[in-house]
Amino acid sequence: MSFVNLKQLAGELGLSSSTVSRAMRDSYEISTATRERVKAVAQQLNYQPNPYAGSLRNNVTKTIGVILPQLDNHFFSLAINGIEEVAQQNGYHVLIYLTHDSGEQEKAVSKYLTSGRVDGILLALASGTRSVGHLEKLKLMGVPIVQFDRVSDALQTATVTTDDYTSSYQATEHLIKAGCRTIAHLMVSESLSIGSRRLHGYQAALHDHQIPYDTGLVLNGRGTNEDNLGHITQLLQQRPDIDGIFASVERLALSSYQACQRMGLSIPDAIKIIGFSNMETASLLAPSLTTITQPAYAIGKEAARILFQAIIKHKPVLPTQSLELKSELIARASTARKG
Amino acid sequence: MSFVNLKQLAGELGLSSSTVSRAMRDSYEISTATRERVKAVAQQLNYQPNPYAGSLRNNVTKTIGVILPQLDNHFFSLAINGIEEVAQQNGYHVLIYLTHDSGEQEKAVSKYLTSGRVDGILLALASGTRSVGHLEKLKLMGVPIVQFDRVSDALQTATVTTDDYTSSYQATEHLIKAGCRTIAHLMVSESLSIGSRRLHGYQAALHDHQIPYDTGLVLNGRGTNEDNLGHITQLLQQRPDIDGIFASVERLALSSYQACQRMGLSIPDAIKIIGFSNMETASLLAPSLTTITQPAYAIGKEAARILFQAIIKHKPVLPTQSLELKSELIARASTARKG
Repeated sequence: MSFVNLKQLAGELGLSSSTVSRAMRDSYEISTATRERVKAVAQQLNYQPNPYAGSLRNNVTKTIGVILPQLDNHFFSLAINGIEEVAQQNGYHVLIYLTHDSGEQEKAVSKYLTSGRVDGILLALASGTRSVGHLEKLKLMGVPIVQFDRVSDALQTATVTTDDYTSSYQATEHLIKAGCRTIAHLMVSESLSIGSRRLHGYQAALHDHQIPYDTGLVLNGRGTNEDNLGHITQLLQQRPDIDGIFASVERLALSSYQACQRMGLSIPDAIKIIGFSNMETASLLAPSLTTITQPAYAIGKEAARILFQAIIKHKPVLPTQSLELKSELIARASTARKG
Repeated sequence: MSFVNLKQLAGELGLSSSTVSRAMRDSYEISTATRERVKAVAQQLNYQPNPYAGSLRNNVTKTIGVILPQLDNHFFSLAINGIEEVAQQNGYHVLIYLTHDSGEQEKAVSKYLTSGRVDGILLALASGTRSVGHLEKLKLMGVPIVQFDRVSDALQTATVTTDDYTSSYQATEHLIKAGCRTIAHLMVSESLSIGSRRLHGYQAALHDHQIPYDTGLVLNGRGTNEDNLGHITQLLQQRPDIDGIFASVERLALSSYQACQRMGLSIPDAIKIIGFSNMETASLLAPSLTTITQPAYAIGKEAARILFQAIIKHKPVLPTQSLELKSELIARASTARKG
């Protein structure tokens, strides 16, 4: 007896693999007519669903995987605490995998996880990720995925994020109100959700305050800390008119401090700095750092809560379950107005 | 046909389970005579070694586990980078497990790992761990273990540490030479290797400089950051004569800064502070923090190197493979003498 695989069956039906897979699982997203047609042809061609999917859906591992781009970031260490609290309540183990912001590493980890090692995945995308095919594959195999903070809309699943656009707008406006006119924006990656949303918030605030958007003031800081320090120093040397920096992630705010220290530029007199950060010690820096602080612990907790609903009830994770939580702007000395 | 298990066989022989297990694996640690006696009785009683041990020793998972007490510590995030570099060279995946310094969590993770999920383990002990039976069990099952930074000598395996005693002696002497006479020592846990070694270095330096050791100046800071901040504030209120603080871990140095900030105590004029830390941004604090900086990346790399030797060559990890690397004292403003 010969078998067809998912791809062959989909080809036969003239449908995408994803549609066929969802039809076989009686997904609400697929019409009843299509479901019936898919099942009839599947039976005819002797299609056997992937054996992994079944074992995964039986929740045999009692383990969830958390895929993180990096560790030296207070946001992620706090989010992990929230995730672990919920996992413990559910009697689950948490495995952490690091991608170091590499798309290749993320693919390798995803492939590794296709062998049924976890019952579900929480994921913050690597900045190096350009397409989400590797994650689609996990989803097709029945592994529920919830994305948090750094998300892709292409991967149709629930996301837990903060109000990146609004808080970036506020951060930029905060600098403008403090007297800044030439504001640099340090971002991680435009292909990352947080990258583009934070950039758009920055652009909108400039626009509303009649400040022209200048691409020469936008720096992509996805290198090592040393690389970033070099690039920021270079930018500040080339553009002595810069009087404010909006850093879209914690480590870029710290690299900005280092660059100013190295160049003898006084914060906040010569340059004001604001950054997204969950550093508990932002108030101990010289000067204390004005931050946009995300509810990192709550983000981890909510993302895990959505994931466990899917795992326990054997239901898919739906984009409609997505949540957006509010960040808080905490003004400190690094953006203080003169005198 | 009936079988005996390891414990029953050991009882029959009047030996410990550990000795019997090692004898069955032809360990160099067991005399030839004992090995022969053990094997003869094992055959007689129809002893079957644990089936897991065999599969583990075949390195089927291509995965190593890293057990860490916490994430919000720059030492561990750097050590992980060193570990991952070596793991990648060997084509291995790295799973990270957090214990949050809880002995119970460490036991749960160890139990989870007995089911053959990893080919080897790198471990920094939780401060809450009081005995290492759970790790002994993994070792008996043939899972190689290398400990780093926070180690137990009771668990006979290789360790990769820094010169905790010497560098603590130097840190204390550095404060004494800067003029301090009443030096508080903030430690994590006396039951932890780094706890006792750092305490002993502190005591020895005081002794050599004819300063009496005062237990009232030693604070155990293994609570939450908020707990620790409260305890340090209380200590500083009760003992206004304190003119120096030696923090044995990064987060206690930061809590000390917060306590001084809260109480309006000027660093370094009223109190000088030195701490173990791998914070890249120690120089950005107000004032910049004098640190004992451990070679965290090299520690992770060396620990992984020893582990992979054992995994690849199917050899046990030996205590004689242990390494001690040197830390560096970097003097900054927080311990500066009065101008």
